[in-house]
Amino acid sequence: MDQPIGIAVVGAGYWGPNLVRNAQATPGLKLRYLCDLDVERARRVLGDYSTVRVSGSLDDVLADPAVDAVAIATPAATHLPVAMAALRAGKHVLVEKPLAAGYTEGLELVREAESRGLTLMLDHTFVYTPTVRHLRELVRGGEIGTVQYLDSVRVNLGLVQPDVDVLWDLAPHDLSIFDAILPDGVRVVRVSAHGSDPIGAGRACIGHLTLELSDGVLAHVHVNWLSPTKIRTMIVGGSRRTVVWDDLNVVQRVSVHDRGADVIEGDEARTQAIISYRRGDTVAPALPEREALRGVMAEFAASITEKRPPLTDGWSGLRVLAILEAASASLAAGGEFVTVRDVRPAEWEEAVA
Amino acid sequence: MDQPIGIAVVGAGYWGPNLVRNAQATPGLKLRYLCDLDVERARRVLGDYSTVRVSGSLDDVLADPAVDAVAIATPAATHLPVAMAALRAGKHVLVEKPLAAGYTEGLELVREAESRGLTLMLDHTFVYTPTVRHLRELVRGGEIGTVQYLDSVRVNLGLVQPDVDVLWDLAPHDLSIFDAILPDGVRVVRVSAHGSDPIGAGRACIGHLTLELSDGVLAHVHVNWLSPTKIRTMIVGGSRRTVVWDDLNVVQRVSVHDRGADVIEGDEARTQAIISYRRGDTVAPALPEREALRGVMAEFAASITEKRPPLTDGWSGLRVLAILEAASASLAAGGEFVTVRDVRPAEWEEAVA
Amino acid sequence: MDQPIGIAVVGAGYWGPNLVRNAQATPGLKLRYLCDLDVERARRVLGDYSTVRVSGSLDDVLADPAVDAVAIATPAATHLPVAMAALRAGKHVLVEKPLAAGYTEGLELVREAESRGLTLMLDHTFVYTPTVRHLRELVRGGEIGTVQYLDSVRVNLGLVQPDVDVLWDLAPHDLSIFDAILPDGVRVVRVSAHGSDPIGAGRACIGHLTLELSDGVLAHVHVNWLSPTKIRTMIVGGSRRTVVWDDLNVVQRVSVHDRGADVIEGDEARTQAIISYRRGDTVAPALPEREALRGVMAEFAASITEKRPPLTDGWSGLRVLAILEAASASLAAGGEFVTVRDVRPAEWEEAVA
Amino acid sequence: MDQPIGIAVVGAGYWGPNLVRNAQATPGLKLRYLCDLDVERARRVLGDYSTVRVSGSLDDVLADPAVDAVAIATPAATHLPVAMAALRAGKHVLVEKPLAAGYTEGLELVREAESRGLTLMLDHTFVYTPTVRHLRELVRGGEIGTVQYLDSVRVNLGLVQPDVDVLWDLAPHDLSIFDAILPDGVRVVRVSAHGSDPIGAGRACIGHLTLELSDGVLAHVHVNWLSPTKIRTMIVGGSRRTVVWDDLNVVQRVSVHDRGADVIEGDEARTQAIISYRRGDTVAPALPEREALRGVMAEFAASITEKRPPLTDGWSGLRVLAILEAASASLAAGGEFVTVRDVRPAEWEEAVA
Repeated sequence: MDQPIGIAVVGAGYWGPNLVRNAQATPGLKLRYLCDLDVERARRVLGDYSTVRVSGSLDDVLADPAVDAVAIATPAATHLPVAMAALRAGKHVLVEKPLAAGYTEGLELVREAESRGLTLMLDHTFVYTPTVRHLRELVRGGEIGTVQYLDSVRVNLGLVQPDVDVLWDLAPHDLSIFDAILPDGVRVVRVSAHGSDPIGAGRACIGHLTLELSDGVLAHVHVNWLSPTKIRTMIVGGSRRTVVWDDLNVVQRVSVHDRGADVIEGDEARTQAIISYRRGDTVAPALPEREALRGVMAEFAASITEKRPPLTDGWSGLRVLAILEAASASLAAGGEFVTVRDVRPAEWEEAVA
Repeated sequence: MDQPIGIAVVGAGYWGPNLVRNAQATPGLKLRYLCDLDVERARRVLGDYSTVRVSGSLDDVLADPAVDAVAIATPAATHLPVAMAALRAGKHVLVEKPLAAGYTEGLELVREAESRGLTLMLDHTFVYTPTVRHLRELVRGGEIGTVQYLDSVRVNLGLVQPDVDVLWDLAPHDLSIFDAILPDGVRVVRVSAHGSDPIGAGRACIGHLTLELSDGVLAHVHVNWLSPTKIRTMIVGGSRRTVVWDDLNVVQRVSVHDRGADVIEGDEARTQAIISYRRGDTVAPALPEREALRGVMAEFAASITEKRPPLTDGWSGLRVLAILEAASASLAAGGEFVTVRDVRPAEWEEAVA
Repeated sequence: MDQPIGIAVVGAGYWGPNLVRNAQATPGLKLRYLCDLDVERARRVLGDYSTVRVSGSLDDVLADPAVDAVAIATPAATHLPVAMAALRAGKHVLVEKPLAAGYTEGLELVREAESRGLTLMLDHTFVYTPTVRHLRELVRGGEIGTVQYLDSVRVNLGLVQPDVDVLWDLAPHDLSIFDAILPDGVRVVRVSAHGSDPIGAGRACIGHLTLELSDGVLAHVHVNWLSPTKIRTMIVGGSRRTVVWDDLNVVQRVSVHDRGADVIEGDEARTQAIISYRRGDTVAPALPEREALRGVMAEFAASITEKRPPLTDGWSGLRVLAILEAASASLAAGGEFVTVRDVRPAEWEEAVA
Repeated sequence: MDQPIGIAVVGAGYWGPNLVRNAQATPGLKLRYLCDLDVERARRVLGDYSTVRVSGSLDDVLADPAVDAVAIATPAATHLPVAMAALRAGKHVLVEKPLAAGYTEGLELVREAESRGLTLMLDHTFVYTPTVRHLRELVRGGEIGTVQYLDSVRVNLGLVQPDVDVLWDLAPHDLSIFDAILPDGVRVVRVSAHGSDPIGAGRACIGHLTLELSDGVLAHVHVNWLSPTKIRTMIVGGSRRTVVWDDLNVVQRVSVHDRGADVIEGDEARTQAIISYRRGDTVAPALPEREALRGVMAEFAASITEKRPPLTDGWSGLRVLAILEAASASLAAGGEFVTVRDVRPAEWEEAVA
């Protein structure tokens, strides 16, 4: 029998307890430690009935050979040092979004992991929901035809974060979903960002991103911490079908619509396009209800065991970071389009060279 | 008893029949003509049981002293000549949105009407729904506090118009609603517009407007002809309450939420704002179901009788036109902010001079 | 060219204006009169622009040879004399539900119409909605398999009727829909009715019907005048598919679910059934939005022209009446099951004799 | 400091794991054992990281003086022996619904607990949701006026239970909610039950209960295992307000409507009631999201510590059992009304004697 992968969770704050619970429930993983500078907090997270060890020292945890991997749920600003220490100790790393506080830091982590042959995985949780897995199949399998536009709305009364604006807090979800479902990942040429801070919080609480994808498709993301009602809707417009995902409609999250407008080519002289309208049926696929984070942990374990990149690898994290950085630059520049870095693995660069 | 106001409807196309029906049902109005170049079409609209006269000649209609007013439902490009002819013939005018094909043309109409002391009214239909009337009270009455942001979504599978893009087709609804509910009308300093034509229709089928209002408030409008599902949501964020209008929720269109985030002022040294969250009840006001166009006609009649400007007067039409023109310029310039004309009645200019 | 069918509408109350409007819009019909004892009310319904004649005398209207048919929208208690007079004058008859105040009276009308070869049609409006037409196809076409159960809820804050209880007021809608969609019409063996009058209105304001159909299927109807929210849901459970109709979900009224439980036959000795569960996709068929009453009028005209029974003929009206009478008897008897009359056309009785 | 209450969970099947999790998280409780005949199943429930002991012997568990209380999640048929053994061993008991397989058995448990001064509590989980707690306040606090009717719908594609029909499986939820919110508990005089087994499962899969409460109010419960869509709606009609609880509307579960019909008393001679209609606003109270079972455990601990009856005591369990037994009798008798036992504590009987 295979040895289970020993794992330590670092960070016992908001998200850490979820990692602890799911690490414990995932076959192939063996939770060794919950590590937090605040040892009491870590103890409270584990509760009175746990055999898992608590540690206040990252060094101690990384020194333990029974630890093969770490899952990091600390503030973004600490991702670089914590993850780098783990990689240098030879541990596989699962890290909360965003990968790091900036693109350059993120790239350091990716390169370190690649050079050591270690897994570096992003906890882009939504990507592991049954909904996004299905969306991915629909888009990549060609069932919706060519993607024509993307529109994502993620608004609710959310916590105004002390360190990041609403774009950095919420948009990683939308961007990582785009990244997962589009055939080549989310390849953005330019981004324009508008933001607003109507309550005087010191950072944007409402944000709008307009993304120009490399194939000319326009995507839009609306994130908002101030809305009294929760709206989580994504529309993936395709040439054959359009998918509407309404995450609050618990009995029918995903609807695949055979409805849309098509241009029928007229002769050259026509200046007016002839439009035809499809008004066909809607199909709501049966999807299981499954906790996404369970899938995250399973993929982390599988990618380590199978020595392959995980679905949400470091490069996906970099693509998201590159967009966020450009968005911040656009926001500062009053919404003008800012070019997004072209994120490509080294092999790709060598291959085309 | 007062004489009823004789009215002629010009244009028997998509919207004309609605004007005909509501003109007939409005006390104080007497429908004299339905006028259309296509006389047969006009006859079909009236049906086999009507005593209303049909005419193919605008001149004849305008020459009839029994006609006091005209309601114009012809293509936007014809609004200037048709409305100008009517005004010059001494008739009051109700005109479909937009007021005219451009700002300058619209201003001509406004000046002509003012100089002649005639009513010039825009058929901004949504303004006369029970919902917007209530919103107007909530906002102007101070119940929601200071407006902090506006967000409007108007998407569905709509007809791709042959002459205008989706911004000119749909956004006048959102802009005229903003104009009606904001205490000083919709005063926009700058507008940024992004658009997309993913089906190759020759004009934007998806549009996003970011409006910077004169008091710094940011408003956003998303219009879309290609969505398979209809979404019509407006959020009016206020410092005391936030209103969510979901027009498709027929049992509860308007919800007034006592939910939101407020910044509590800390001492000067604090760099972090202290945020408090309200999570109070939601109130859904009881609103009548009433046809908006009936209210349009009643207001038209009342403004003529009472010799006062209508709620949606020519200036409101001009404010909408000014924004649309700037939006088109921004769209052409790749989304950069474009300054919007300051629209003010002449008296105002004189008063401040 | 065929002569249009001359029609008179009798009754200018709540429903009459809808008949007037739709009769005027239906090809093949020519509206001759609106007849009401209250001539002023009739005039108001027609408005100031109509060429249709008003009459206060049913006799005069029936004496006019230009009148081929009458549509009756008077109180149920008057259906027998008004419809009988019309039939005896040789006119085709369209009558509001219920057909008459009781089964025996209804049967008189059916026999009179049959003996004279005249159309007698029920205005079971819902049957002519695109939704019920589609349901009818789904059920009769076998797509849902064998019908296993029916459940209908029709609740909202409704007018407490002065002459009938909630069962007689609302349940005819549900029963006529059952009648339209079931392959042999709604054949009920026994009915049990419970009712409640919590506000002291003098008649049941809340009612529950349990219907035992001739094939053993149980159907349930819940009607309620007192609910603050509107609920209009019908579930048609089938062995292959189950249809859920939510009439307030304007973007998706009908959902066809491939979800359900099936018993897999075990060997004889097993006392426990083995159940398997289907959890397949849901399909929402594209349905047009069309006014049902337009379809009622078109069917009335067609049945006259084609000399064939209409979809909702007198027998369907009798089947509904038979159930309502038994329901009233059950209500009076404290909810015990009461046998429902077997309603069959005379030819059928002769054929099996 | 007080000693924590030592607790053992008996039964590691469907519900047991939830009891284990919540017992561990409740201050004042100390989980000592998970007990199940299938020791391996119990171990799997606890997982690899738990310090909680597993036992296959109820006797051993009950013999341990560190165990003060047991929470029983075994099949209903075993509730009597398991709970009786626990009570006789001096342990407080929390038991899954229904209290026992029949009324007489349940009464034995209630008497045993009372004679020993031990807590006997029902896990009527829904009663501890924020929603039902709020409903209870609304009803008992008089805000909705006099209760006029109750209507509860609980339908979805559910597991066809091998040992009980849908009434015994699902209706305890509705009945225990009625019991919690009505000022004197759910006092039912008579019950009529209709059921249907359209798939041949060997027991009713669809059920309708009509309950005549002691104050004449009629309540209705619809439970259904076969519906493809989940519906969970309860209407509590009151003389001043009506509450609608839609449990699937996650953003607005509870709506308090100032809408309804009232009879205005006319003079004696009037045979027609004069009805007036209220059409006021709707209020959706802000409710926390909290796991109900946490509240169950907290109440169990508090009732033991404070030596007081819990909110859902044995008598509430008996009231539910009495209704279920009468419902089964009615079902067997074709739906006729069956009298429900009058359930009253002994003290009450002595007091009125």
